[in-house]
Amino acid sequence: MGKKGFTSTVFPVETISIGGTDEQVVKGGRDKFNLLAAGFAGIKQIGVIGWGSQGPAQAQNLRDSLEGTGIVVKVGLRAGSDSVKKAGEKGFTEENGTLSEMFEVIKEVELVILLISDAAQVENYKEIFAAMKPGATLGLSHGFLRGHLDSIGEEFPGGIGVIGVCPKGMGPSVRRLDEQGKEISGAGINCSFAVEQNPNDNAVDIALAWAIALGAPYVFQTTLRDEYKSDIFGERGILLGAVWGIVEALYYVLTMSGNFSKRDAFRSTVENITGPISRIISAQGIIGLYQQFQGKEKEIFEKAYASVYSYAYVLLMEIYDEVASGNEIRSVVMAGERLKNYDMSKIDRTEMWEIGDQVRKDRSELALDPLTAGIYAGVMMAQVDLLKEKGHCWSEICNESVIEAVDSLNPYMHYKGIAFMVDNCSRTARLGTRKWGPRFEHVVRLEAIPTYYEDGEQTKNIDELVFESFRNNPVHQALAVCATMRPAIDISVVG
Amino acid sequence: MGKKGFTSTVFPVETISIGGTDEQVVKGGRDKFNLLAAGFAGIKQIGVIGWGSQGPAQAQNLRDSLEGTGIVVKVGLRAGSDSVKKAGEKGFTEENGTLSEMFEVIKEVELVILLISDAAQVENYKEIFAAMKPGATLGLSHGFLRGHLDSIGEEFPGGIGVIGVCPKGMGPSVRRLDEQGKEISGAGINCSFAVEQNPNDNAVDIALAWAIALGAPYVFQTTLRDEYKSDIFGERGILLGAVWGIVEALYYVLTMSGNFSKRDAFRSTVENITGPISRIISAQGIIGLYQQFQGKEKEIFEKAYASVYSYAYVLLMEIYDEVASGNEIRSVVMAGERLKNYDMSKIDRTEMWEIGDQVRKDRSELALDPLTAGIYAGVMMAQVDLLKEKGHCWSEICNESVIEAVDSLNPYMHYKGIAFMVDNCSRTARLGTRKWGPRFEHVVRLEAIPTYYEDGEQTKNIDELVFESFRNNPVHQALAVCATMRPAIDISVVG
Repeated sequence: MGKKGFTSTVFPVETISIGGTDEQVVKGGRDKFNLLAAGFAGIKQIGVIGWGSQGPAQAQNLRDSLEGTGIVVKVGLRAGSDSVKKAGEKGFTEENGTLSEMFEVIKEVELVILLISDAAQVENYKEIFAAMKPGATLGLSHGFLRGHLDSIGEEFPGGIGVIGVCPKGMGPSVRRLDEQGKEISGAGINCSFAVEQNPNDNAVDIALAWAIALGAPYVFQTTLRDEYKSDIFGERGILLGAVWGIVEALYYVLTMSGNFSKRDAFRSTVENITGPISRIISAQGIIGLYQQFQGKEKEIFEKAYASVYSYAYVLLMEIYDEVASGNEIRSVVMAGERLKNYDMSKIDRTEMWEIGDQVRKDRSELALDPLTAGIYAGVMMAQVDLLKEKGHCWSEICNESVIEAVDSLNPYMHYKGIAFMVDNCSRTARLGTRKWGPRFEHVVRLEAIPTYYEDGEQTKNIDELVFESFRNNPVHQALAVCATMRPAIDISVVG
Repeated sequence: MGKKGFTSTVFPVETISIGGTDEQVVKGGRDKFNLLAAGFAGIKQIGVIGWGSQGPAQAQNLRDSLEGTGIVVKVGLRAGSDSVKKAGEKGFTEENGTLSEMFEVIKEVELVILLISDAAQVENYKEIFAAMKPGATLGLSHGFLRGHLDSIGEEFPGGIGVIGVCPKGMGPSVRRLDEQGKEISGAGINCSFAVEQNPNDNAVDIALAWAIALGAPYVFQTTLRDEYKSDIFGERGILLGAVWGIVEALYYVLTMSGNFSKRDAFRSTVENITGPISRIISAQGIIGLYQQFQGKEKEIFEKAYASVYSYAYVLLMEIYDEVASGNEIRSVVMAGERLKNYDMSKIDRTEMWEIGDQVRKDRSELALDPLTAGIYAGVMMAQVDLLKEKGHCWSEICNESVIEAVDSLNPYMHYKGIAFMVDNCSRTARLGTRKWGPRFEHVVRLEAIPTYYEDGEQTKNIDELVFESFRNNPVHQALAVCATMRPAIDISVVG
């Protein structure tokens, strides 16, 4: 099903001008919660299946937001799952009728929100489809299953609705911001939505209600195919793979230079990105980051940006091709088979991350590092430009390349380190981070940094076109528009 | 076509006992050159298409070996190719009738040896098939085109023979060893051969003649499918990707430890592998490397081996799955499209490789490093064990995982550095090295080395099973058998 605009009989649809294009959006917030019952008309029970990253967040946010509507939120888990206890601690129990074996739940609810791992979806989708009530709606939180069905030439079954509501942040952020919002003014994580099958003509309203109940500040339209491409690509890029690769490379370069203690190298790289760089981009955009620098530091930023941009773009093209061709989805499915026999290894066993633990315990004032900022901005912009080239809408680009990074993932990395951030995303994301992070490390260490030093530190040989295109990029206006629709509070992950 | 044993009316076929199995082989050498005309019966002209890595080597070796037989070796190149001049310098010219536009050559010869890049094969295979004379034979030097046709559900056309002769070494080695052999006793690079289509019942003899004319010490049978799996996998593993990743990681670890100068770190890692470690494995096998160490050094080797083995095995499983599923071939084809617009970047622009240039200019006695040796042997053995698990024959395993490394590729790396070695292989290999090398770097730096240091340097906690399996591995006998059939001289790449 294509993306051709949408109407809603329940929620007000607005048209915004963003990055030189028009997009339809629905704004969320607590003042819209009185519309949720109408949006979910016909739905008596919602089944949230799975308790990984998104499961706990969505089950709790939905239950909180739907209080008083009479709609019951039930959690469905594999028989004997370790998560039964965890769900119980959050109030989902067999005793109170809100926890059951997953197929029991799937059989009885009108909306199945399927948040089990991608591998488990691939393994169980036929049984899940068969168990659903006729006319019920299948809800996905990203397009992986659509991509898998594409890769094997299959379709969703007729007679059920199929929608996507895809929060542009990790599960813990979806929960944390919504909790914070209760006490202040309403906050959460932006969501895209997609309608893939709409047999009862109610799919748009259900999707919008779902997104608003999660706490989305605003909701924009996509397709499941655009979603899986941008999502699987984005997490392999700047959201997880690239940010990890960048900091591993820069930490190496700075410590090997002999001019930095290991502690200072960590502060100039990891701490810089997850702290001040992310905070400034969140508030003032990527262009706002650039505007922090003057004189010599501005030259360093520009040179670093220009040194990395084209190498990162080439790697990002490769990742996009791998995702769009189905290769990456086949890889994840094959990895699922192998992972039955061994665990995924830890990614933070080196000295660098021990030093990070010390740095986090003993924080002090930190100056922006123009080299790190330029490299990070260069990779981020390469991702923005590639997604635009591939036809994604500005809301998707901004959320998948910038907002999710600076407002969801990086704050968790700032709080607890790289492994905590990566391992609180989906297994598909964890696999992709381990696969592509090392490539970004090489882009920075073997390509960008040697280029940076090739002509000394003078900026005269910078590719002016590259930097000119940065200054004039429509993403800056697009991010400013998104900022007007962002949560009124910053995420606070300590607590 | 399966692999079911073979007979030859021209060349003596022997059965050898290797690694506990029987394999049929044909031994080469200059004393067999008098059989080449009979092996090539019916072939008046051989067209060598392409002038990349294998092209120059095979064209020259064939011409030399066939001197006096009346069989003409012609080179075919794209119109306007830069390689026309290079081929001319080696005596292949339009004037003397041994150089022409590639389709002109394909149309007139009885054996087309297709050595253009994999990307060019993918782009031109239909025209090439159509241009061949009925009854002619298509010769491939690895199974990539078979894999590509598999991935798109196509077949070779009927009416032509299709064979593979696959030298287990880079083009420059194929040429260099054959040249050396002229003056001493006969030498070259082992080849596998495969018969895919055999309409005239002469395919086995043509393949054997081709391999022996290249200078192969011995020839063993495979299928094009086994060949592309082991070949594409092997070069992503220990032959190129893994060896590069290992040395990048170990150089990092040693320099960051503060106990090594950069020069000493390079000597303990890169120089150790490409120099003494490769020489000892070449002469005495992997078990012979282990036997060099005593006491404390032996413990370091064992602990390093056990620390890396299982992590490397997991990554190698992933690579094998990617190759066998067709993903890797699709990736190479997609990269070919992207490479029309940019060049592949250099991989030796960092300080480490500048230090390597200095080390190579000023060589001195070098002690074996047990840590480097243990890591290298652990990764190599993981590859050996995985190929056995996947059903490859011992000749293929030994040549693709050990002999090609220590007798062909590593000596070139020792001579001119990493980029020279990698960039003198096929583009498919270059792409794979850039893709998987960083993953091996992470296996060593983020997994093996932290594991190595976890319990101090005592060996008491080594996984004894892993090491026991090394000591009793049938590969040691298999390599000893291969050694009896190896060239009587070592490759000398200086000169």
